[in-house]
Amino acid sequence: MNIVALAGGVGGAKLADGLAQLLPPEALTIIVNTGDDFEHLGLTISPDVDTVCYTLAGLANPETGWGRADETFEALENVRALGGPDWFRLGDKDLATHLERTRRLKAGQTLTQITRDFCQAWGVRHTILPMSDDPVQTMVDTVEFGELPFQEYFVRRKCEPKVKGFRFAGIESARPTPEVREALERADAIVICPSNPWVSIDPILAVLQLRSTVHCPPSIIAVSPIIGGQTVKGPAAKMYAEMGITPSALAIAEHYKNLLTGFILDTTDAHLAKDVQPVNVQTCVTNSLMKSQTDRRRLAQDVLNFIQTL
Amino acid sequence: MNIVALAGGVGGAKLADGLAQLLPPEALTIIVNTGDDFEHLGLTISPDVDTVCYTLAGLANPETGWGRADETFEALENVRALGGPDWFRLGDKDLATHLERTRRLKAGQTLTQITRDFCQAWGVRHTILPMSDDPVQTMVDTVEFGELPFQEYFVRRKCEPKVKGFRFAGIESARPTPEVREALERADAIVICPSNPWVSIDPILAVLQLRSTVHCPPSIIAVSPIIGGQTVKGPAAKMYAEMGITPSALAIAEHYKNLLTGFILDTTDAHLAKDVQPVNVQTCVTNSLMKSQTDRRRLAQDVLNFIQTL
Repeated sequence: MNIVALAGGVGGAKLADGLAQLLPPEALTIIVNTGDDFEHLGLTISPDVDTVCYTLAGLANPETGWGRADETFEALENVRALGGPDWFRLGDKDLATHLERTRRLKAGQTLTQITRDFCQAWGVRHTILPMSDDPVQTMVDTVEFGELPFQEYFVRRKCEPKVKGFRFAGIESARPTPEVREALERADAIVICPSNPWVSIDPILAVLQLRSTVHCPPSIIAVSPIIGGQTVKGPAAKMYAEMGITPSALAIAEHYKNLLTGFILDTTDAHLAKDVQPVNVQTCVTNSLMKSQTDRRRLAQDVLNFIQTL
Repeated sequence: MNIVALAGGVGGAKLADGLAQLLPPEALTIIVNTGDDFEHLGLTISPDVDTVCYTLAGLANPETGWGRADETFEALENVRALGGPDWFRLGDKDLATHLERTRRLKAGQTLTQITRDFCQAWGVRHTILPMSDDPVQTMVDTVEFGELPFQEYFVRRKCEPKVKGFRFAGIESARPTPEVREALERADAIVICPSNPWVSIDPILAVLQLRSTVHCPPSIIAVSPIIGGQTVKGPAAKMYAEMGITPSALAIAEHYKNLLTGFILDTTDAHLAKDVQPVNVQTCVTNSLMKSQTDRRRLAQDVLNFIQTL
């Protein structure tokens, strides 16, 4: 069985890691959001790609989920001492990724090539693909500040502004890479990981155009990132509320309704399963909270078992 | 008495530091070579400016003379792990300088402004000025590899190639900054620090054009960087030999002959004092080796005393 996982940041990376623990490298491709990518201190930073790579490489900070384990912040502290921008928390090890990526991009390599090389250097055997090599920039429209680039909203302003909407700048001219297309051609199922639908998954879906330009596998399942009306991490629930939608697993199923063949909810939300729309979507209720390595593998196994039943 | 010191890397920085220990901030300006500046990993690096700033700030690595004390190399080690260039030894603290400088240059600030701000942040009270805000690139013409950018020769190839000559690319259009001109207008004496004449001082002199466009103070003295036919550090003696000139304090005096009013030799070379050309140049023989902080101050005091006699 060939699986394509769509992932954004920390939550998506965890399930992708679980799937990677169960599937051989040739059976899993992870397509990652690049709408969060941005320029900072002259460096091209791809936060979601890095989070997925670090997680699968076992290099991720286990406390935060993002950044590197055993990280130091000498450079950042000295940038701060010079009055430079310190709101984006760049560790010294992590800096190397951005320095070398920026160098290679300037030398003409694509983000796809660079990600492949980095994965090889880090010992990641499964394929991690940026959704596109064309620039896409997620813009968050806020009540207080108007449109903010994603990292300005997410990191600098700590998701505090009230959200009105989203725009993916550059999406019209962004194309899925040949590697992404090929992975989708071969896929038996797509797993939409428990990442933020608005800012992690929607940019990927907007590039992939699954129902139109790109081959679409028979099964597409999503794992709800909202459990008991809340997110484990990140602003998805807050965003739904601010957009006038009650944050719940149902809202997630509704979000993906044109795509889904299957939907996974947490046991906390078991009572909602009967209300999942559209009604022809199969549901699976399981413990979807991933606190440990074991949790990742267990949920991944549930996902794979569920796909077999579809 | 207003002093302008011309300095390149480590040796020059040491004497500049000695002068800064003796003179109030308003009485000393240090004009620094920028011919070594280069782009690396997307960063704009000014090695000599940084060495002088770090030295005066008390932040320099006391073993190497360049780079930061108590430095870590997490970023560099991780760049190496990704197969990136690791020949230029960038520490994590030092990286902050280059990141923030590059960011500010891209935002339109000049190297002069940036250096002033950095000095303020680091607690350096004396004025350190890049020789120019216009790019000058020292090229080293070598027997084995033809022309090499300075850092390729100096760091990457460890000064091993045999030198045939030097070229300062961009020198025709490089102008001294208003700040440099003003410092020279006010100067009672110029001290050419014991830096490499070919690659540290010549670029400064080429930009300053002391005898023509810029006001030239009555006294110009040089401290020989060659002691007993050898350099304390760096390739100056090797360069003289390769250029067919016997490396000695005499070669240094000859190098600067159109400029000098005074020349300082080490006691080791006392016997050469009578042969210093041109004959009207005053000489001063003293212990010019700077191993300790006390040595720097002592030599600086000798320099100032000597200037008084001219």
